[in-house]
Amino acid sequence: MPPAPVNIKLLLEYDGTHFYGWQKQPGLRTVQGVLENAVFKCSGKQTGIIGAGRTDTGVHARGQVANFKTSARLSPSEWVRALNHALPGDLAVLSARKVSSGFHSRYSATGKTYRYEVLNRQEPMAIGKAFVWEFYQPLNIRAMKAAARLITGRHDFSSFQVDRRGKLKKGGSGNAVCTLREVRISAKGKRLTFTFTGNRFLQQMVRSIVGTLIEVGRGKIKPGEISEILKKKDRRFAGPTVPARGLCLDKVMFG
Amino acid sequence: MPPAPVNIKLLLEYDGTHFYGWQKQPGLRTVQGVLENAVFKCSGKQTGIIGAGRTDTGVHARGQVANFKTSARLSPSEWVRALNHALPGDLAVLSARKVSSGFHSRYSATGKTYRYEVLNRQEPMAIGKAFVWEFYQPLNIRAMKAAARLITGRHDFSSFQVDRRGKLKKGGSGNAVCTLREVRISAKGKRLTFTFTGNRFLQQMVRSIVGTLIEVGRGKIKPGEISEILKKKDRRFAGPTVPARGLCLDKVMFG
Repeated sequence: MPPAPVNIKLLLEYDGTHFYGWQKQPGLRTVQGVLENAVFKCSGKQTGIIGAGRTDTGVHARGQVANFKTSARLSPSEWVRALNHALPGDLAVLSARKVSSGFHSRYSATGKTYRYEVLNRQEPMAIGKAFVWEFYQPLNIRAMKAAARLITGRHDFSSFQVDRRGKLKKGGSGNAVCTLREVRISAKGKRLTFTFTGNRFLQQMVRSIVGTLIEVGRGKIKPGEISEILKKKDRRFAGPTVPARGLCLDKVMFG
Repeated sequence: MPPAPVNIKLLLEYDGTHFYGWQKQPGLRTVQGVLENAVFKCSGKQTGIIGAGRTDTGVHARGQVANFKTSARLSPSEWVRALNHALPGDLAVLSARKVSSGFHSRYSATGKTYRYEVLNRQEPMAIGKAFVWEFYQPLNIRAMKAAARLITGRHDFSSFQVDRRGKLKKGGSGNAVCTLREVRISAKGKRLTFTFTGNRFLQQMVRSIVGTLIEVGRGKIKPGEISEILKKKDRRFAGPTVPARGLCLDKVMFG
């Protein structure tokens, strides 16, 4: 009798610069595709991998979670070593452990933390450009923080949602209600860090919110208008979507 | 009459990965070479540029200082814009200002701060690999800190010096006395940061010291042996030279 399959949970770090996002797509280099290839190399079996967050093209992760079921007789620490041996330098397995067969990276996740980094200065940067969005104009951080407080909480986020092809979405299609437990802006020198913790995130939601907060910082949107934008449930009323490179999936929470 | 030349001081940031160090060399991409090229593009004149620290191949900088004399009628802020326009993405001018004609980036410098970053974990990293040395074996930080205290101060650092061609140096050639005001090791999770502030640094001195401190951390050298290694004035008694990619010139002090 073949051994019963075990469910392996992975903690992943990746530099999203040269990936077309998480989700497998024919002919494109994606995190899921590269990872499934590595699992195939280690186990000899085609194995589907489930990711907690389907990060977009260019988005990074320091704490992505994925799982797969396998009958290969490798211990979790052997999986870590074997996979890291098979993976390219921009994708790393930080840990692996056996979990119950019911564990599902996406459905079992109860929350996620995303971080968005902005460098707010006129001079270009030469170090770490791939992980930060450089924005030159002066920003009113106080106004941005006031707006961030209005975004926090349980809302219908239709105004901050873009569909898979990058098209604006108009309310009505599916459930857009999310709870953002934390929307924090911290400034350290000229570096701004936006931290978002929520139960779920819609397509390009973080980048749409950051783009809107930047508009608040520039004085183009008043902090108080955030509540109206939420009520509109229409993407056209929010600010632009900021570039992917500043975004990182930091953590996935379970249970 | 042509305008009197002015002396311009630049603050520079660069990702050293794709530079063959600071110093100009025929046929190689160096920071000095690329910068002189940019100044030529902006002023139409061949202009020699002096750097405060002649960083090695692969070493980064967040606070390198350089200066040049020019008769071009550009204000400091125009220099910043024009140079950044002419420079590649891995080299940036953070600021420029007029200084007295006697200012010389190297001779006027009274101190420098270098930082060396180590990631001390078994799992590979996928983000920011170009700026950190990954070292897998467990380290005794307490012993390393004890050794760091013995390195601090005024010593003949011949045992931590390598010549330009990477050859070991035996004492006697030139002045190897330096004062390290600060040798600090700080650990944040699995990331170790070594900070060195001193009046001057010899060729590969920081990387030789870090390599020796790592040997202390591994238990191969006892902290107390540092004093003997210094007394030997012979590079062969110190630990190996760690890779360039973890090293960054953080700051240059004047006056």
